[in-house]
Amino acid sequence: MKPRVDVLTLAVADLGRALAFYRDGLGLPTEGVIGEQWAGDEQNASGAAAMFELDGGLILALYPDLAKDADIPRPAPQSGAFSIGQLVDSREAVDELLARAEAAGATLLEPARERPWGIYSGYFQDLDGHLWEVIWNPRATAT
Amino acid sequence: MKPRVDVLTLAVADLGRALAFYRDGLGLPTEGVIGEQWAGDEQNASGAAAMFELDGGLILALYPDLAKDADIPRPAPQSGAFSIGQLVDSREAVDELLARAEAAGATLLEPARERPWGIYSGYFQDLDGHLWEVIWNPRATAT
Repeated sequence: MKPRVDVLTLAVADLGRALAFYRDGLGLPTEGVIGEQWAGDEQNASGAAAMFELDGGLILALYPDLAKDADIPRPAPQSGAFSIGQLVDSREAVDELLARAEAAGATLLEPARERPWGIYSGYFQDLDGHLWEVIWNPRATAT
Repeated sequence: MKPRVDVLTLAVADLGRALAFYRDGLGLPTEGVIGEQWAGDEQNASGAAAMFELDGGLILALYPDLAKDADIPRPAPQSGAFSIGQLVDSREAVDELLARAEAAGATLLEPARERPWGIYSGYFQDLDGHLWEVIWNPRATAT
């Protein structure tokens, strides 16, 4: 297997709401909802999704019909199966990004704090419960 | 917010088992388990994790104590909240990677198939139920 991830797809309950959170609330660039021409049917999931092309080429996708596309039952809403991490340049940048996420409607789980392994970080949950960790690592150069 | 993901962390029930799946079964490069010196306590999660540095700099991390680190209840095992996508070069490469994942212990959900939006893809679940989609997109040049 190539050591590569090209797409990270998040299941969302309400595509418009999730799009607004990531585009308007967090400021990620996107062309908005695409794929609405594929409405789905008994066999096929709907194609409607929103995609954000991130630095480095990774695509972050918001997709209401992920479970149907994978042919599995729709999961119950919960957090903690995975988290998405972003490195920032300073302790203050961690606090600022968490505050911005909260202002956009995210849930902060606890104040950011030092971890024993030397990072300063805090988590937020997006509107569907997906976890993000915002991290300052004094030993790394954030890009 | 920077349009960037630096780390994708997967919660796993058994770190050694998950490491063997990704390292030995799928062939992803890693230095193995790190952070065992932080055993955790009432307040702090354990630091033990395994990391894979992927092309483009994204780090894929396997981490048993994610929920505790985020200060949330440990989630029930389930699939479908997210999926990780990898683009490959051909239809045959989709089938080959799915077969390799299955040989390594993954669960295939259905045979790979054409989607209405023009890709050929199939999903597998890793040992913890995390979804991967292996994709051939005839309109894109896989890298």
